[in-house]
Amino acid sequence: MNPILLTGFEPFGGSKVNPSIEACKPHKGKIFNGHRVEVVEVPLRFQEIRPTIVGALDRLKPAAVISTGQSGGEAIALERVAINLADARIPYNCGAKPVDTLIEPGGPAAYFSTLPLRAIHKALQEEGIPSKLSNSAGTFGCNHLFYELMHALDQRGWEIPAGFIHVPKLPSQAVAKPGPSMDLPLTTRALEVVLRVVGETL
Amino acid sequence: MNPILLTGFEPFGGSKVNPSIEACKPHKGKIFNGHRVEVVEVPLRFQEIRPTIVGALDRLKPAAVISTGQSGGEAIALERVAINLADARIPYNCGAKPVDTLIEPGGPAAYFSTLPLRAIHKALQEEGIPSKLSNSAGTFGCNHLFYELMHALDQRGWEIPAGFIHVPKLPSQAVAKPGPSMDLPLTTRALEVVLRVVGETL
Amino acid sequence: MNPILLTGFEPFGGSKVNPSIEACKPHKGKIFNGHRVEVVEVPLRFQEIRPTIVGALDRLKPAAVISTGQSGGEAIALERVAINLADARIPYNCGAKPVDTLIEPGGPAAYFSTLPLRAIHKALQEEGIPSKLSNSAGTFGCNHLFYELMHALDQRGWEIPAGFIHVPKLPSQAVAKPGPSMDLPLTTRALEVVLRVVGETL
Amino acid sequence: MNPILLTGFEPFGGSKVNPSIEACKPHKGKIFNGHRVEVVEVPLRFQEIRPTIVGALDRLKPAAVISTGQSGGEAIALERVAINLADARIPYNCGAKPVDTLIEPGGPAAYFSTLPLRAIHKALQEEGIPSKLSNSAGTFGCNHLFYELMHALDQRGWEIPAGFIHVPKLPSQAVAKPGPSMDLPLTTRALEVVLRVVGETL
Repeated sequence: MNPILLTGFEPFGGSKVNPSIEACKPHKGKIFNGHRVEVVEVPLRFQEIRPTIVGALDRLKPAAVISTGQSGGEAIALERVAINLADARIPYNCGAKPVDTLIEPGGPAAYFSTLPLRAIHKALQEEGIPSKLSNSAGTFGCNHLFYELMHALDQRGWEIPAGFIHVPKLPSQAVAKPGPSMDLPLTTRALEVVLRVVGETL
Repeated sequence: MNPILLTGFEPFGGSKVNPSIEACKPHKGKIFNGHRVEVVEVPLRFQEIRPTIVGALDRLKPAAVISTGQSGGEAIALERVAINLADARIPYNCGAKPVDTLIEPGGPAAYFSTLPLRAIHKALQEEGIPSKLSNSAGTFGCNHLFYELMHALDQRGWEIPAGFIHVPKLPSQAVAKPGPSMDLPLTTRALEVVLRVVGETL
Repeated sequence: MNPILLTGFEPFGGSKVNPSIEACKPHKGKIFNGHRVEVVEVPLRFQEIRPTIVGALDRLKPAAVISTGQSGGEAIALERVAINLADARIPYNCGAKPVDTLIEPGGPAAYFSTLPLRAIHKALQEEGIPSKLSNSAGTFGCNHLFYELMHALDQRGWEIPAGFIHVPKLPSQAVAKPGPSMDLPLTTRALEVVLRVVGETL
Repeated sequence: MNPILLTGFEPFGGSKVNPSIEACKPHKGKIFNGHRVEVVEVPLRFQEIRPTIVGALDRLKPAAVISTGQSGGEAIALERVAINLADARIPYNCGAKPVDTLIEPGGPAAYFSTLPLRAIHKALQEEGIPSKLSNSAGTFGCNHLFYELMHALDQRGWEIPAGFIHVPKLPSQAVAKPGPSMDLPLTTRALEVVLRVVGETL
């Protein structure tokens, strides 16, 4: 059967680690409802986000896509909407720092997530993991990837569950720059719950 | 010349006052770059938001539309995007409490503001008034009005400056429910700056 | 009759203005319950805080002392307690940056405010001005002045109403560095309420 | 050798669990620098806090005391100062809800922690655990215990390292009431670091 594509980002902003990709790695190769998990690390480079996600889609023909990235929040944030806007407060890893830039000129203003967000939210809460529905994935790399993902699926006419989830910083990252955090084992378990719920819909 | 339509909301959520409409009223009848300001109060009732804004558009044929509402934030929030989603944490004044509801079935996921947000932001800051660009107007009445406004303009093919601006609570509201606030004279002055900048583009 | 001493701080941290002294100035010379208001500006310099407040006390023999300073908060903060600790995150205006330093070696760990904080809180709220009781005035210049004030009164055996009140930043300061703010007219009015309530107890 | 006394609180405010006592339990009986850890659970009942801590001190004659409690914060908070004030926003478990009440009439306004807070802070950060120095332990049960602890030591003339540390809520608690959290294994590890640093000073 077609795999579930799970993506995380490479480190950025001076960190040597990114919890999003670290929490993905342990799930590589696991089977959920018959679908094997494939993990792809996405570079936080302006010109590489699109080819990375498009390449993964065309190569893997996934049954579902769960993309993840790091936020400054305190809970697993289930992103509802990707907007066609790149506006960076800090540079991408390539040095690019777009201002009020369309991600896809000619593309629509936004796409909604097609993941079962309410069911994921309920399952996470039942597991004792803080989560929330979020109305903005920002205007940096995470929203960028989310938009490119949904745009590529739209262009291909693939109606599969797909979307983006923000995970909190690691405690070690909150030492260097104070803010809320979530320890890696809990974030990893959160993604397991997400994979299980998404798998059940396939 | 066609007027500038300026809207604010009626009170909600237990408050007897809403700074958005109060900060609009003093501008009624003022002229900016030849365009007279018309003020309309929007009811926070699920079935009345659309007819109120659509009715005002068709009656006034405005040259620009600036809609405002009350937020819990600390700055004037220049909203970038309206999304096709109503999801209420507290009821509208009519008692409706929509969950994950499309505002316009068949409508696009989102519309971008067509107000000159960067120029407004710069002008507000030069006046010493805290402001910010915001990526989410929420999923309650404010986003609802913002979406209906942009959808109606899109359907009519009217390419005019239009969008939504959130203003902070009044200090007296922050007494009852702690949070940041902005005093009415300052909020009123902020809307004057917005009117001036928008007027200059007409 | 003996005056009410009202103090505010000079600007610091890169600002050219400090709302605490600006909100004091308009009250200079006013009479509350027969007591004239004297305003003193306190330098944010490590070696000058003590002589400034001690000098003002000995010169004016005040019937009450209300010291004020600027905070990062959203409400008028009625400080309950001054602690014998200077620990600066940014330098004082003189360049001093004390770490875990006793303000008065041999002094007690802390002094409580002797202002009628509950009555002030109630009166501010009735005027529609956000206020709160606060359990920490920090460990920078504001707490420093508060401690020196209470210590000097204790050493003189003067049992008069005295304490410290934090006021929010000005909106113009929140432009440069985002955060909550309160416009000067409202902060000035807040201090009028404080003066009235304190005056009534004399 | 005399033990290290480690205390945590019973659950309160509707929770069925309190991370402070849960993070203490695994350390019971461990030896740090020759000192055995004794764990005591403190009831969040107004009349029982004092006899519980005083009883434990007199029974165990500890070489050091580390008291812990649950906060709403995002980091391990190393409390600097206990103040002589009980002012409860929610009731204690016994139903008491003191307002502006002296914990010990005749006692000083405050006591400073005698734990090596800077060394603990440094060690926690080196372990990748978010921590901070805090200037207020609030005015509820945690500050209450902290004050009674320091007051009892002062009255006995025991000059030992003693103080209070706040730990964040558990993730499961943050599901019911949103806010930052720290998973129990990390909080437990944080207390191990604290025990190690304190043990080294004995």
